[in-house]
Amino acid sequence: MTGSETRPATADRRAALRARLIELATARIAAEGLGALKARSLAAEAGCSVGAIYNVFGDLDDLVLAVNGETFRALGAQVTAAVAKHAEADPAERMIVMSEAYLAYATENPLLWRALFDVNMRVDGDVPEWYLAALDRLLAIIDAPLAEVFPDLPPEEIRVRTRALFSSIHGITLLGLERRISAVGQDRLSDMIRYIITSATRPGAT
Amino acid sequence: MTGSETRPATADRRAALRARLIELATARIAAEGLGALKARSLAAEAGCSVGAIYNVFGDLDDLVLAVNGETFRALGAQVTAAVAKHAEADPAERMIVMSEAYLAYATENPLLWRALFDVNMRVDGDVPEWYLAALDRLLAIIDAPLAEVFPDLPPEEIRVRTRALFSSIHGITLLGLERRISAVGQDRLSDMIRYIITSATRPGAT
Repeated sequence: MTGSETRPATADRRAALRARLIELATARIAAEGLGALKARSLAAEAGCSVGAIYNVFGDLDDLVLAVNGETFRALGAQVTAAVAKHAEADPAERMIVMSEAYLAYATENPLLWRALFDVNMRVDGDVPEWYLAALDRLLAIIDAPLAEVFPDLPPEEIRVRTRALFSSIHGITLLGLERRISAVGQDRLSDMIRYIITSATRPGAT
Repeated sequence: MTGSETRPATADRRAALRARLIELATARIAAEGLGALKARSLAAEAGCSVGAIYNVFGDLDDLVLAVNGETFRALGAQVTAAVAKHAEADPAERMIVMSEAYLAYATENPLLWRALFDVNMRVDGDVPEWYLAALDRLLAIIDAPLAEVFPDLPPEEIRVRTRALFSSIHGITLLGLERRISAVGQDRLSDMIRYIITSATRPGAT
């Protein structure tokens, strides 16, 4: 009977440590970037052993995936909240609002946003299901207005266009924020977003 | 008189070392990535001192910029050669050919291509003029067909659209090659490129 009493307590402690590690890792990545995440200093901050971290997460990449899962949720919430204020706008305008919200999130949370794309990704099969589902929810936000623009396209073709547009806005955000193609003002980034989204959402673009 | 005889010899040696260092750094980055470039092992390979490297290049970032300058030239040559075979095609089709050539270059030279975007960029003023000029020549390749599509736009607006399209194709290439948004077949990457370019080059998109 002792076993059945301690097991929930152990599970609780494990869940609490897991949440605490995600919280600490998020703060560290947000402040100093993915490269600053080290098991030893994380264990010191959490007041646990290094072994305890690897007991909860298989490796640090698993922990980063968990942080990224939260980032996807936060990013999705910010994009959804922005577009909710423009629910009556036409699909193209709603997608521009989404893109601007994406740019704003990346500008405000540059290192957390970078971590979404810099984490080591394993061969496809190894990416956890819940992570793919979080990604899918993010992309589904874009599918919705795009399906309004192209009502005759099957869902898988909508998703190809969603990916194309997400990748495009991601590229504009990435090169714009890092000033990779010389300095480009934030207002011109908005013009670029508007140009791409407006062009790609004309009904004729089927 | 001895001075004037040795000075050219010194300049020659310096130029030869410079060329050799660029060659060795290019091979190292192509094989193992930017992170594998170390002054010590480079000096050993080149048969010079570490100090001699810093005598020719202010720091390793300067050397990487020189490597990237060559990569920009090679990438530009590949894109130009591809489009030369379709000189009679309409501007949109030429831009799709360019984009496919960009995707092919990145696929064939993933680590050299990554180095173009991963090198530490200093504050704007510190990026050398010749580097910005190399970048400008690359973007000018895209300006040309775009100016045909939008003959009434002034050059600076063409350049904003060039940047938007370059960034978009870069984003599709980056997320596609790294399989960041789950696995996407190479054929769907081509579909994404075609969707974005075709949409964004309609005359109505002014």
